[in-house]
Amino acid sequence: MKSYDKLNNSIEKSGSILCVGLDADIDKLPLGVERNLEGLLSFNREIISACAISASSFKINFAFYEQYGVNGFDVLLKTIEEIPKDKFIIADAKRGDIGNTSKAYAKSAFDFFNADSITVSPYMGSDSIIPFLEYKDKMVFILALTSNPGSADFQRLVSDGEPLYKHVIKKSISFGSTDSIGFVVGATHPEELEDIRQMIPENYLLIPGVGTQGGDIEAIIKANNNCPAIINVSRDVIYSSSGENYAEKASEKAEFYKKRFSNE
Amino acid sequence: MKSYDKLNNSIEKSGSILCVGLDADIDKLPLGVERNLEGLLSFNREIISACAISASSFKINFAFYEQYGVNGFDVLLKTIEEIPKDKFIIADAKRGDIGNTSKAYAKSAFDFFNADSITVSPYMGSDSIIPFLEYKDKMVFILALTSNPGSADFQRLVSDGEPLYKHVIKKSISFGSTDSIGFVVGATHPEELEDIRQMIPENYLLIPGVGTQGGDIEAIIKANNNCPAIINVSRDVIYSSSGENYAEKASEKAEFYKKRFSNE
Repeated sequence: MKSYDKLNNSIEKSGSILCVGLDADIDKLPLGVERNLEGLLSFNREIISACAISASSFKINFAFYEQYGVNGFDVLLKTIEEIPKDKFIIADAKRGDIGNTSKAYAKSAFDFFNADSITVSPYMGSDSIIPFLEYKDKMVFILALTSNPGSADFQRLVSDGEPLYKHVIKKSISFGSTDSIGFVVGATHPEELEDIRQMIPENYLLIPGVGTQGGDIEAIIKANNNCPAIINVSRDVIYSSSGENYAEKASEKAEFYKKRFSNE
Repeated sequence: MKSYDKLNNSIEKSGSILCVGLDADIDKLPLGVERNLEGLLSFNREIISACAISASSFKINFAFYEQYGVNGFDVLLKTIEEIPKDKFIIADAKRGDIGNTSKAYAKSAFDFFNADSITVSPYMGSDSIIPFLEYKDKMVFILALTSNPGSADFQRLVSDGEPLYKHVIKKSISFGSTDSIGFVVGATHPEELEDIRQMIPENYLLIPGVGTQGGDIEAIIKANNNCPAIINVSRDVIYSSSGENYAEKASEKAEFYKKRFSNE
């Protein structure tokens, strides 16, 4: 099945556009979980199981596993294997390099880790993005306007009357089909999101920045105007309790966000 | 010792600004080397040993190891351990994400893999770059004008009279000291390099794109105007022979580039 169809199906089945971000952090593991990589994997397993009913997607932030070196990658792989087969998986790796190198990154995310999609940095242009799109069944989320304060530094530089992030969107949609290309737009920019949705009403957006980063949910839901999107929450769901009831609390928080995102 | 001093010392001792890129590719391994990860590590060991006398630095392109999954990372680590301690090591990973995530990437490259420096993508701005610079003894090479054709797509977009890559350079030099910040400028752009050298005569440049990518060596050496730089060659050195004499041929090729780069 194409990843695009898998994402549509998963949203329909769960009734949720929530994506849960599995940001691994041994120092934040709750009471009763061993503070080592085995504990981390066991924690991820419980969190996935607790949140699966309220989420259509899971996002794995590669950095948080890479920080633990070779064994961290092993936990990354095993974490992905714990995710139910009908849930959409995002390799949040923000990769991008010259053609033959991006091809190797795509091989890692799609063939080895078996993710449905990957986040890609557009700075190096077309030949850094296209190798990911050569996996016709997969999806690529290209960074457009990110959620962090530094997004103002370069993404908003205006050239020919338009900011860089719009140039990125306009150029990138020519690289492949609507159902293979999505963009990352931070929840911290509702005004710009409204504008982006007019430019690309059909492409999926991955919207991070809700929760710890402080994006305004109502403003984002309104600006998104029911266009295809998934909204990611990481820390605020998975570390919602530092006690032994962490899985139950994460489950409640995921259900809370599911409802908030569907205007229930 | 600070990475900056290590790089200066290594260049002085070897008399070489050549950086050898260890792009792992099992399919390109020469005759007599087993086509598996053990063979790859053994090949890297021989190449490092053969090229060390003619190179000041080694660049590890993470993608080529990541494509082999968890065990590929193990080969990456073991490859770094094979590099002589006085040689400068670049983690060519092109990472960059929001603050707490870039911090995790920095931990991976610097604490786990023990690299002296990392390549970083600037798209996400200041807070995606600064966590790497918090390792005061390390160096960060920020992508400015890359060697690939796609560099024209966004890096050359003009805003306020200057292309994006110049905005990246001007903004980024404010993030840290001259001896901790370098930039990546492709050997395929000698004219722009001349201009960049006038902007930042003191920062190190990492110059890829010589060899297979076709950068003009003489034009690049002239444009660099004896400013601090290392020039990377990957495939054209390490895969210079597909026969059993591969180490000898790589050694000769490294010596050839060392001399070309020093105008001997």
